Amino acid sequence: MLTERAAALDAADPLARVRDRFLLPEGVVYLDGNSLGALPSAVPAAVEDAVHRQWGTDLIRSWNGNGWWEAPIRTGDAIGRLIGAAPGQTVAGDSTSVQLFNTLLAAARMRPGRRLLLTDPDHFPTDQYIADSVGRLLGLDVRRVPAGEAAEVLAAEAGNVAVAAYAPVDYRTGELYDMAALTAAAHSAGALMHWDLCHAAGVLPVELDAIQADFAVGCGYKYLSGGPGAPAFAYVARRHQAEFDHPITGWHGHAEPFAMAGTYTPGEGISRARISTPPLLSLLAMEAALTAFDGVEMTAVREKSLSLTGFFQECADTLLDGLGFTLATPRDPARRAGQVALRHPEAYPLVAALTARGVIGDMRVPDLLRFGFNALYVSHTDVLHAVTELRAVVTAGEHRAAGFRERPTVT
Amino acid sequence: MLTERAAALDAADPLARVRDRFLLPEGVVYLDGNSLGALPSAVPAAVEDAVHRQWGTDLIRSWNGNGWWEAPIRTGDAIGRLIGAAPGQTVAGDSTSVQLFNTLLAAARMRPGRRLLLTDPDHFPTDQYIADSVGRLLGLDVRRVPAGEAAEVLAAEAGNVAVAAYAPVDYRTGELYDMAALTAAAHSAGALMHWDLCHAAGVLPVELDAIQADFAVGCGYKYLSGGPGAPAFAYVARRHQAEFDHPITGWHGHAEPFAMAGTYTPGEGISRARISTPPLLSLLAMEAALTAFDGVEMTAVREKSLSLTGFFQECADTLLDGLGFTLATPRDPARRAGQVALRHPEAYPLVAALTARGVIGDMRVPDLLRFGFNALYVSHTDVLHAVTELRAVVTAGEHRAAGFRERPTVT
Repeated sequence: MLTERAAALDAADPLARVRDRFLLPEGVVYLDGNSLGALPSAVPAAVEDAVHRQWGTDLIRSWNGNGWWEAPIRTGDAIGRLIGAAPGQTVAGDSTSVQLFNTLLAAARMRPGRRLLLTDPDHFPTDQYIADSVGRLLGLDVRRVPAGEAAEVLAAEAGNVAVAAYAPVDYRTGELYDMAALTAAAHSAGALMHWDLCHAAGVLPVELDAIQADFAVGCGYKYLSGGPGAPAFAYVARRHQAEFDHPITGWHGHAEPFAMAGTYTPGEGISRARISTPPLLSLLAMEAALTAFDGVEMTAVREKSLSLTGFFQECADTLLDGLGFTLATPRDPARRAGQVALRHPEAYPLVAALTARGVIGDMRVPDLLRFGFNALYVSHTDVLHAVTELRAVVTAGEHRAAGFRERPTVT
Repeated sequence: MLTERAAALDAADPLARVRDRFLLPEGVVYLDGNSLGALPSAVPAAVEDAVHRQWGTDLIRSWNGNGWWEAPIRTGDAIGRLIGAAPGQTVAGDSTSVQLFNTLLAAARMRPGRRLLLTDPDHFPTDQYIADSVGRLLGLDVRRVPAGEAAEVLAAEAGNVAVAAYAPVDYRTGELYDMAALTAAAHSAGALMHWDLCHAAGVLPVELDAIQADFAVGCGYKYLSGGPGAPAFAYVARRHQAEFDHPITGWHGHAEPFAMAGTYTPGEGISRARISTPPLLSLLAMEAALTAFDGVEMTAVREKSLSLTGFFQECADTLLDGLGFTLATPRDPARRAGQVALRHPEAYPLVAALTARGVIGDMRVPDLLRFGFNALYVSHTDVLHAVTELRAVVTAGEHRAAGFRERPTVT
């Protein structure tokens, strides 16, 4: 019956055709697009052009002739469309950690006199480390408050909190928080809201402008499928751009970069959030990758994503019952982003054994199996196959065989 | 006679064969490798492999299976060989601006109580902006002292200077400063020495270890030919690594990155200078590009580089005499790095008209024509051709034709 359900859901899927925009390896069901998105078909030709023609032949002339100079803004706007940001508020480049540091420090500077920086004790490690670093540099106290309690603490500490830095999605469980509510709570307390969208961009309609978010960052290599280590992005709401006072003052953000002045005068608009020369091969690959979203609305992505994660839970209920798994991801669609995590004490070897069967997910210590569902290229049939294979692994005890030792995996 | 000289110099050039390691466009003499190095022949296949096999097929498994995790250290060591750094002190990733900020701030933290940060008023703009930013964050005064006067100021301010941040090469004129002497002067004053090697790496034997440099950064896309926006590198002398306390605390620098701990514990050795996920397509391209240096000693590169720049000066003396040019680059080989700059009031249109003839250099405001000579792929015949063409442009007044208006060019 699940087989028929999967087939019917796929047959009715308006995004099914988008799968052709990706080059998926044979014999693999890829449920780790929340770590590294699959390769979009538009990328290889774009990269070959970037290497041979733009770099090899046009050389330095490509800065003007092939639009390299504008690439961070152009690509930023392409991402902006997917996160509800009107053009001119998003820039692509550097890594998430760098963008996080640069924007969080700038945000904190906009609330002088306030002594608190709130962040989530369950935030992705880098976010916590960077919050601590910014706090130390600016003399702020960093207080770790879970997302679910942040509104309450903001109200209690109104006037003291400079910035609240959160993610809408728990990177381990995929639990989704209410961005609009927390942003409103921050604003009610006079604080600024800083969002890390790594696990939200490309998953659901984020609507940064609509919820009046202040700052956001996110990575290009997860659901945006921009390639390994693809440049990150930073969003600076238009109303804050004139005050945006960031620490990594590279010359690309200067008002007149080619005047080569000895002191920094920030550029107009989002251009001041540029830092310096972006990694163009990676950036142009990402720009091509983003065309996989052409004509695709985030509402449709969200609808399919929920269908995939919901169907995974349904399959797990049926096929993994009594096999030692518990569901770590909320069943309520309003509280679920684009992944499903299962707890099992043997998470790592299970993921390793499943990978050996061609079903790729990942794990997070100590006991989480994570499965990410990119609505652009994952089908319900894939979902059923993955759960069926996981059942086969665990019932046969395949994960207890030698060779499935712990090794690093990367978010 | 210059023609015969060029031919003889090329015939005797032990690096002539290395030119085959680059894919140079037909009909172009490329003297802008100090902005963007030419495309090494090893790159296209490496990038294609990175895109199709590593990303497209192996996907997330490439972090272990294809050595992505180690790439920043591996590539850092490959650069280390070219800058006189023993393995384990150099890491590749991020942009020069980011590495500059991260290492300069860390350096300044190692000299608490000292109130001065010295930098060069003729330093590349980003370096000055970042010095100002670090000064502001740590409450240090940034004093701009020309490289030639820095030793004197260091002696006068011994005990007050935390860090001296300089480049060995003036990015406009190519003038070379004595790195060993300035490093020694900094150390005599109890200060730390921070070098920006953008215009030195791949040009001359930098010998960071031998001169006991403390910190250095540099970019991958100039003489290292790593590709447009190639990742930068950072050098942290081994003796400082245990104290290296940097602000951009991404999870890749953590002692146990996959433990996903909520607080930052820096890793051992150079690994703590890692920030986060590097732009792998760009990084793997650079790693392949660096093989152009295989078997090439920097002493040989330096010898040929001086021969090229000296021959350019000789050609200019003969062919550009009386045409309004003055030489901005020292004639003394000990004071000359890998480029030659000429002053001319019509610098921009001259460079534009010269480009139209297939000779690519660049300009810097207000009046500098810059020509960079990468010893790995530029010949003495190229040099003579470039000067001959420049003479032809200026004598015919070609640069006064329409179409050679000012547009941005990029370092």
